[in-house]
Amino acid sequence: MSTTTTNPVEALVVHLQETALLSTSNNLLDWDQETTMPPGGLEWRARQQALIARIVHERASSIERGDLISAVEADREAMADAETAAMVREARRDYEKATKLPATLVEEMAKTSSMAKHEWAEARAASDFKRFAPWLEKLVGLLRAQADCFGFAKDGERWDALADLYEPGCTAKYVAGVFDPLRPRLQGLIADLSKAPKQPSNAFNDHFVSIDAQEALSRFVADKIGFDFNRGRLDRSTHPFCGGTHCNDVRMTTRYNERCVNDALGSTMHESGHAIYEQGLPFARIGTPLGESVSLGIHESQSRMWENQVGRSRAFWQWLAPELTRIVGSGVERYSLDDLYGAANVVEPGFIRVEADEATYNLHVMVRFEIERAVIGGSLEVAGIPSVWNRLYKELLGLDVPDDRRGCLQDIHWSMGAMGYFPTYTLGNLYASQFFEAACAEMPGLVDGFSRGEFAGLKTWLNRNIHMHGKRYSPAELVQRVTGKPLSAEPLMRHLEGKLRPLYGI
Amino acid sequence: MSTTTTNPVEALVVHLQETALLSTSNNLLDWDQETTMPPGGLEWRARQQALIARIVHERASSIERGDLISAVEADREAMADAETAAMVREARRDYEKATKLPATLVEEMAKTSSMAKHEWAEARAASDFKRFAPWLEKLVGLLRAQADCFGFAKDGERWDALADLYEPGCTAKYVAGVFDPLRPRLQGLIADLSKAPKQPSNAFNDHFVSIDAQEALSRFVADKIGFDFNRGRLDRSTHPFCGGTHCNDVRMTTRYNERCVNDALGSTMHESGHAIYEQGLPFARIGTPLGESVSLGIHESQSRMWENQVGRSRAFWQWLAPELTRIVGSGVERYSLDDLYGAANVVEPGFIRVEADEATYNLHVMVRFEIERAVIGGSLEVAGIPSVWNRLYKELLGLDVPDDRRGCLQDIHWSMGAMGYFPTYTLGNLYASQFFEAACAEMPGLVDGFSRGEFAGLKTWLNRNIHMHGKRYSPAELVQRVTGKPLSAEPLMRHLEGKLRPLYGI
Repeated sequence: MSTTTTNPVEALVVHLQETALLSTSNNLLDWDQETTMPPGGLEWRARQQALIARIVHERASSIERGDLISAVEADREAMADAETAAMVREARRDYEKATKLPATLVEEMAKTSSMAKHEWAEARAASDFKRFAPWLEKLVGLLRAQADCFGFAKDGERWDALADLYEPGCTAKYVAGVFDPLRPRLQGLIADLSKAPKQPSNAFNDHFVSIDAQEALSRFVADKIGFDFNRGRLDRSTHPFCGGTHCNDVRMTTRYNERCVNDALGSTMHESGHAIYEQGLPFARIGTPLGESVSLGIHESQSRMWENQVGRSRAFWQWLAPELTRIVGSGVERYSLDDLYGAANVVEPGFIRVEADEATYNLHVMVRFEIERAVIGGSLEVAGIPSVWNRLYKELLGLDVPDDRRGCLQDIHWSMGAMGYFPTYTLGNLYASQFFEAACAEMPGLVDGFSRGEFAGLKTWLNRNIHMHGKRYSPAELVQRVTGKPLSAEPLMRHLEGKLRPLYGI
Repeated sequence: MSTTTTNPVEALVVHLQETALLSTSNNLLDWDQETTMPPGGLEWRARQQALIARIVHERASSIERGDLISAVEADREAMADAETAAMVREARRDYEKATKLPATLVEEMAKTSSMAKHEWAEARAASDFKRFAPWLEKLVGLLRAQADCFGFAKDGERWDALADLYEPGCTAKYVAGVFDPLRPRLQGLIADLSKAPKQPSNAFNDHFVSIDAQEALSRFVADKIGFDFNRGRLDRSTHPFCGGTHCNDVRMTTRYNERCVNDALGSTMHESGHAIYEQGLPFARIGTPLGESVSLGIHESQSRMWENQVGRSRAFWQWLAPELTRIVGSGVERYSLDDLYGAANVVEPGFIRVEADEATYNLHVMVRFEIERAVIGGSLEVAGIPSVWNRLYKELLGLDVPDDRRGCLQDIHWSMGAMGYFPTYTLGNLYASQFFEAACAEMPGLVDGFSRGEFAGLKTWLNRNIHMHGKRYSPAELVQRVTGKPLSAEPLMRHLEGKLRPLYGI
């Protein structure tokens, strides 16, 4: 399929980009299924996606691809260019991953997850885990088979092989090492806040605003913080996500709850953070590793930064308050700035991860990590998930989960065959805090500017320091390069303690 | 790519259906581009579509495909089955077409038309033919090259090779033979109507109705006449069309004009007719000729029948009038049934084909046929199109075309590389009238039932007589089989004269 050319770098790029033309077509089919496709389209769509996934996999694991990579690796002059060397390093890594998976397994996973996503949506609506369980069992079987194809270290575990797909080098042991000390510090902070003398008002979080008005607000905020609607869309779906095909066609979705503006607003800022990252990747490199994001953790740092460091700051609400009255109306002018800022920062254990506050959020992730580690490891049956889920929510968040809809059926991830994915959310929170501290140090008036609706400074800083490089640096290299230090949990705890303790009067 | 199987029929079906999985993915990319894609997505989308078109073409013209067809042809037992024989006859015809086109030409056409469609939309908005001309020139060059690859009869012309893609066996000479006697009869009728003592009121065609209300009405009517929203969608686009991927995911679009409800209503019924045909094709056969429509002319007969024979009948408006008041409100109750029925049947030469009445419609088609025949034949330069267009509108319809937007830029077809296509609209009108006469003869109360909102009888009759057979019969065979006679212009003229003369009091 590749064009004849004598330059080995060009030949590799053509092969990578042609494959990406197909894989991004599949991304569009996926977006369409989540937002647009009529129910009758399901069966054929699953077959379309399975076939395209198979062709993409055949190309990505082909001898031709391997030869093209080897040819560049053998070209000393080409490899002297740091960008080319990074591209080839990542192309090699992807090739090794791809050649370890048989085409039948790739296709089976695409087909199963396409159907499973639909079944999950139905099971969730009916709050009936049993309906989804056979699909999840099938997916877990396929994931375990995948993990065995990839392999994992002798002192590691099967889950590591899956996590490495999302966060290179990530292992269960490493994640547990981060989570174990974080858990008591977060639980301590949450306990202190719950006993604090001053409690922010939650009233705005129960203020009715029509979905149309919330959608107008979401579009306004997404545009202001830097999402380019000429190169993207915002639609509705059951579970918010950021998809699309490439930097010039980025499609994010939000879900709306008439009783909670902050639900849609937080979700829109979160997805906008992902989308701004995608839109910041260089179009000329699309389809090659230099046009791809570093890792899911780094991706999540972008969404979390806009959602939390920006969207839950007092300065942001100073700017948004009058705009809120203008766009939404319906009596929101009666909330003071303290009411609005407070409502965005209420810490209260709840059932739903995507509605969680910053302090409890990571505990939600810990529940999922523990369960998927056990399921993939073989110590927990799929049928046992609801009871373990409910027990962990009691232990970590003190909650009695009322039903599967608000329990283990709330997230789409597992139905998509994504396990090893959830911990990247917490890694993202850690990266976000550390990046944001560096941005503030470099631009002292940054947060103050938010109160005047000035967000371009942060966006440009992220474009320049993170987005434009694609996969040139590994996550660890990028953090070191941008912040001058290795990753640490201190910035996250400084951010949470520094904001929440004063707000709660402690 | 095909699954190993020893049954030659199954092996051919697998190969056809796998190819269709890809070509229908391209259909979705196309639909998305027309309705949904942000402007920034254009360049990559063109490359996606070009690559998928190339892969589809490679498969459709592969030696493997040829061998699979030959294997079934050689299997006497398999060929004894009439359905299998029809499938193989059509697969052979498609294969012969595909092998005559080089892959580079297919890809170039897909790429060029993807960009040209965008340029056409811009040029149309600016009413600037010069902006579109270079793209059309490029397309015409590619179409002439295509025609030369396909070949045409010694006493025929280059245009025939293109028309044959849409209507098997159709030639310019044949079309001229149908159009030449039809033209004076239509012009005579139109002249009589313009001088008639009684003129139906046009007031309803200038009644303001919000686009949202019109969309609600369009959805209501589409549903009532038999479009299944569980297996399809109705969206908005610049030029109405019916696309999607297969019978269980059919996507039609309408455009709305606040000053003319009949514009959207007629367009919705038209596209619903196409969509009901698509939804009536057998899912198990999708991707094979037995799951495909017979020809564009037959397809158009379905859209025209619902638009004209049903949607412009007095009985239909008897049923719709109270529904219109209920759904649209805004003062429509002041129009009498005569006002509404009359407004749907006003005969008045106009600039825009898709807004034309039944009597003048075919004259619009004749203009386009004459121009594309001359352009493909080489006797007219692309640059000369606007002046010929304007001269013909003066001659045939007595109109001075004010600008290119309302002139030669109004239709999307040429920008998609579709020439030889327009005459199928008039063939469709002829088929529609003849089919409808047969349906009425078989179901005497049919039209009367429309006044009670009963449309299922007609839909079921069409499902059984036309839709479910796919491409089993040729257009000529189908007309003979369903109506007992070969195609004739008499039913169309009977339909027009029989309705319009009484309405105009002559």
